[in-house]
Amino acid sequence: MALHDREGGGTAAPNGQLVEEVPLVHKVLVPPPGGIFKEVGQGIWETFFYDAPVDRFRGQSKRIKSWLGLKFLFPMLEWITSYKSRMFVGDLIAGITIASLAIPQDLGYSKLAGVPPVNGLWSSRDIAIGPVAVVSLLMGTLLKQEISPTEQPALYLQLAFTATFFAGIFQTGLGILRLGFVIQFLSHAAIVGFMAGAAVTIALQQLKGLLNITNFTTDTDFVSVMKSVFGHIDEWNWRSIVIGLAFLSFLVAAKVLAKKKPKLFWVSAIAPLTSVILATVFVFVFRADKRGVKVVGHIKQGVNPSSADQLLFTGKYVGAAAKIGLVTSLIALTEGVAIGRTFAALRDYHIDGNKEMIAFGIMNICGSLTSCYCATGSFSRSAVNYQAGVKTAMANVVMAITVLITLLFLTPLFKYTPNTILSAIIISAVLSLIDFKAAWIIWKIDKFDFLATLGAFFGVFFVSVEIGLLIAVCISFVKILFNVTRPHTALLGNIPGTNVYRNLQQYPKATVAPGIVAVRVDAAIYFSNSQYIHDKALRYVEDEMAKPGSTPIQYLIIDLTPVTNIDTSGIIAMEELQRILKKRKIQLAFANPGSQVIQKFDSSGLLEELGSEWIFFTVGEAVQVCSMFLNKAAGEGSV
Amino acid sequence: MALHDREGGGTAAPNGQLVEEVPLVHKVLVPPPGGIFKEVGQGIWETFFYDAPVDRFRGQSKRIKSWLGLKFLFPMLEWITSYKSRMFVGDLIAGITIASLAIPQDLGYSKLAGVPPVNGLWSSRDIAIGPVAVVSLLMGTLLKQEISPTEQPALYLQLAFTATFFAGIFQTGLGILRLGFVIQFLSHAAIVGFMAGAAVTIALQQLKGLLNITNFTTDTDFVSVMKSVFGHIDEWNWRSIVIGLAFLSFLVAAKVLAKKKPKLFWVSAIAPLTSVILATVFVFVFRADKRGVKVVGHIKQGVNPSSADQLLFTGKYVGAAAKIGLVTSLIALTEGVAIGRTFAALRDYHIDGNKEMIAFGIMNICGSLTSCYCATGSFSRSAVNYQAGVKTAMANVVMAITVLITLLFLTPLFKYTPNTILSAIIISAVLSLIDFKAAWIIWKIDKFDFLATLGAFFGVFFVSVEIGLLIAVCISFVKILFNVTRPHTALLGNIPGTNVYRNLQQYPKATVAPGIVAVRVDAAIYFSNSQYIHDKALRYVEDEMAKPGSTPIQYLIIDLTPVTNIDTSGIIAMEELQRILKKRKIQLAFANPGSQVIQKFDSSGLLEELGSEWIFFTVGEAVQVCSMFLNKAAGEGSV
Repeated sequence: MALHDREGGGTAAPNGQLVEEVPLVHKVLVPPPGGIFKEVGQGIWETFFYDAPVDRFRGQSKRIKSWLGLKFLFPMLEWITSYKSRMFVGDLIAGITIASLAIPQDLGYSKLAGVPPVNGLWSSRDIAIGPVAVVSLLMGTLLKQEISPTEQPALYLQLAFTATFFAGIFQTGLGILRLGFVIQFLSHAAIVGFMAGAAVTIALQQLKGLLNITNFTTDTDFVSVMKSVFGHIDEWNWRSIVIGLAFLSFLVAAKVLAKKKPKLFWVSAIAPLTSVILATVFVFVFRADKRGVKVVGHIKQGVNPSSADQLLFTGKYVGAAAKIGLVTSLIALTEGVAIGRTFAALRDYHIDGNKEMIAFGIMNICGSLTSCYCATGSFSRSAVNYQAGVKTAMANVVMAITVLITLLFLTPLFKYTPNTILSAIIISAVLSLIDFKAAWIIWKIDKFDFLATLGAFFGVFFVSVEIGLLIAVCISFVKILFNVTRPHTALLGNIPGTNVYRNLQQYPKATVAPGIVAVRVDAAIYFSNSQYIHDKALRYVEDEMAKPGSTPIQYLIIDLTPVTNIDTSGIIAMEELQRILKKRKIQLAFANPGSQVIQKFDSSGLLEELGSEWIFFTVGEAVQVCSMFLNKAAGEGSV
Repeated sequence: MALHDREGGGTAAPNGQLVEEVPLVHKVLVPPPGGIFKEVGQGIWETFFYDAPVDRFRGQSKRIKSWLGLKFLFPMLEWITSYKSRMFVGDLIAGITIASLAIPQDLGYSKLAGVPPVNGLWSSRDIAIGPVAVVSLLMGTLLKQEISPTEQPALYLQLAFTATFFAGIFQTGLGILRLGFVIQFLSHAAIVGFMAGAAVTIALQQLKGLLNITNFTTDTDFVSVMKSVFGHIDEWNWRSIVIGLAFLSFLVAAKVLAKKKPKLFWVSAIAPLTSVILATVFVFVFRADKRGVKVVGHIKQGVNPSSADQLLFTGKYVGAAAKIGLVTSLIALTEGVAIGRTFAALRDYHIDGNKEMIAFGIMNICGSLTSCYCATGSFSRSAVNYQAGVKTAMANVVMAITVLITLLFLTPLFKYTPNTILSAIIISAVLSLIDFKAAWIIWKIDKFDFLATLGAFFGVFFVSVEIGLLIAVCISFVKILFNVTRPHTALLGNIPGTNVYRNLQQYPKATVAPGIVAVRVDAAIYFSNSQYIHDKALRYVEDEMAKPGSTPIQYLIIDLTPVTNIDTSGIIAMEELQRILKKRKIQLAFANPGSQVIQKFDSSGLLEELGSEWIFFTVGEAVQVCSMFLNKAAGEGSV
């Protein structure tokens, strides 16, 4: 059997003598080289198509193939062909419930983004998604750096649409190019910190509406906001504060109730609309707007107009719009795809992240052409949708129709809605973004991750949303780089009673054979760490030799089990290691190289230089052979 | 014995029944948590001090400690205290040999950097190092983008000194902060391509001197240079061309000879100086300078003056100088440290990369204050030094004195040296930077690496040195990211006759137990790959189940041997995987988690949720236990 074959002839011990009897050891197989296309091709495949999106098409008839293709392009076909009337009840209830949640939320979020309220409402006509707090805030912050929404409102809106358009283009592009994995570079820990920071920042911004302040800062950092709040105490309006705080308590109470008794979720879902109606009636009846309580005022009636002619493709703001689009699109995707995955896991179905991106992208492109700004999946709405017993995407159609009716006929009713109630709704909505439990778990699991959480949080809190985002990305990258430049290595020992070799630090009772050092390298050996691994391996040998009373080390065995690949720099480092060890009369041996590694050892000539007899199947077998040579030499020495 | 202990009580099978007899399996030990300081501290230690620079101080007497400390600060003390007069012969010969190589080279390199020749000579007064071709070219290219050396020569020089000063500051800073590992982010493959591209670019630039063209382009890309060369055919001077080509042939022949017969290295070493002398005498005798052959002309006599007052710390060029300093310092370090390592390996001693950086940095700071521009380790000089039988750094002192004498008394002799001979010397010097053998080995070992080589080469060749550098860095980073987002995973099988489980693709004869899928993950599970690993593990199960005639899969065993660490995102992905599998009635089991992984499983609660009986010591033992449950269930089913 090939696995047990061993090349004929004796094996040379390091001092050159021939040894006749070698214990039966297994051989490491060298697979044939794959060629550039296979090698690069496999890498590309794993990067872009690891989820094998075309697998289900394979081996099907042409008719089924085209039907599957249609369904792939229009996921609606998945459910509409099997839609039954009794499903409609669930969808109807869910749809109206989300609409009642969505309308007041959207009015508020539009303020965050600095666009007129009606743009917020228009945005949510589309399916399952709508403007969310963090994206609105981010977009608003970035837009305000370019243009003032109060001084140039028309231009500001144009820039918002253009940025939304670019965001859609980026999202669609990322999806089509299957580059969805870029959003995985924001770690969970960084997102938790970023979201909490954004939530606090958004809540602080609502102090404008809650306290009824007119001249509020456009900066979002804690210090500026506090200055703005306490610098305008004269503008505070007690009526506004009382209305706001009263309804805020009501909304938070409804949320707590829904959390404790999931069956009462609808209380929390309709609470915002109820609050809006009550507050509006209250203002109207007592004419509080005449006593300084600011109201939403006139909202343009009717369906959203085309904004295709408002997109800016020339002039100095194109670059800014593209930049804003890129940043918001990535954050929107991070949030949207994460929410999609959460609900997919709840119901045990797969979602294709890249396909989701294309959907979000097309939606935002269409949105930008019809006076909407950047939207994405909303967690609160999706949760209400789920709890309200949604059956299919028909619920979104119901919601869209409800919002449409509102747009066509009910907008005048919002005229007396006080701003303070919208602020209260937003505060209660964003509070759930502060996930103390997640932060506590991160602290428990990984202290370095917790640093990322804190960094992102304080970056958003004290500086700005962008800086927080930048800190989050940087910490995430530092961690990756840290991992690739300084991989883990371990000194190995034998677990008594087995032929298994394990990390001596984890299994302190493991034993070491005298004269032999066995080391495991826990990462692919690439240019970024090859020098480190080279130095570290030598240091293990030197440290062992420096121990008082130790046998001189004659063998260094490197366990390559975790080393999935090695590049040119790695091969060069190993060759250098071999040369240095040879000068010190220490024999280098490798255990269990993977297929790619042994192939590269072979093609680089290292295998030949080292001698294939020094490549072993396991560390156990390597130690066995080396010990045999050592005993033999000791026996000869003592004769 | 603790390793063989197993928690008392029966083990629950996935369907809930209690099993009394569990085969003897080993237990995975959970080490006590280390706490934030230990965890972060260890990481910091490995990143910055893995080479344990203070180890040798430990356990020594105070006197020895301070002596070691002095030697650490002034490495000169290492050799000067044991210097013997017979060593001086070797050092003297080596010193004069390098000087004869260095003087003509430096005159030429100064042209590359666009500074007067005397600055090139001044630069090499310092030890073992001097201006090198690639750094000179890079600095020249970057400087010329800011200021024209012909229009504002004084300002240009000031900027060059300032950039050198910043380069020195960066290098010293990187060394003191022990950030030396940043230069490891340029892979060997990228450097090979970059160097070859730079060499060709430099050689093309020399056509100016060789052909005697006056109005030569300042761009370095192939197209511009060719336009410049063939657009000024009228300026070509046949005398200049004949002198240049004749000596170029002589220099290349001397190099080839030295390569074939290493004992004749001195022929190659003194060839440049010989050429300069011969060509100068030739020009002087035949007064070729009056017939259009351009000569070096007057070189300022005397030791280099202070340039401390010329550094620009205010005004609009400070930023540019800092940028140029940063880029050149990194390239200079990459080259210098690589050369240091090569010779350290030849003589089997360690070099401390960070200490080298501090040395280069201090040298460049001093250089910038004394009219020198950025210098680093030079490969050709170091090689000649080595071959000339250098004993200690005293050789550099000899060289410095020789250059000093040249500066003081011999500069007038260079007045009639034709530019063409300097061009010939540079061309012959940079040709050795084109390493075809290395490129061929890279092609053989790793096709992706070869793409990096090509990308860097063509970037430099067709665009510019900076773009080539940028391409090299980007390709290197893409490879790292590629590695961390899409780690290798493998389906495992049992090697017959052993209890070892290996990659089925590498060992096709390995066997798989029915109803069980064993998967190995070959990377630390971090946010960047957690989703991928989660999806991939599920896909392995689904693919196995889709095979016609397969037993339904009831166990998924994940081999964590190579998984050195897991972060919060990874834990969350594993928890989600466990929940999904539970819904499908598949039991998840882990084999051989490392100390950090099992600790995080424990602290996150995943261990409790999963049940510690599903953590196994090896894949073999996991399969053994799962098979037992399967057989038992089958036996009960058939009864």
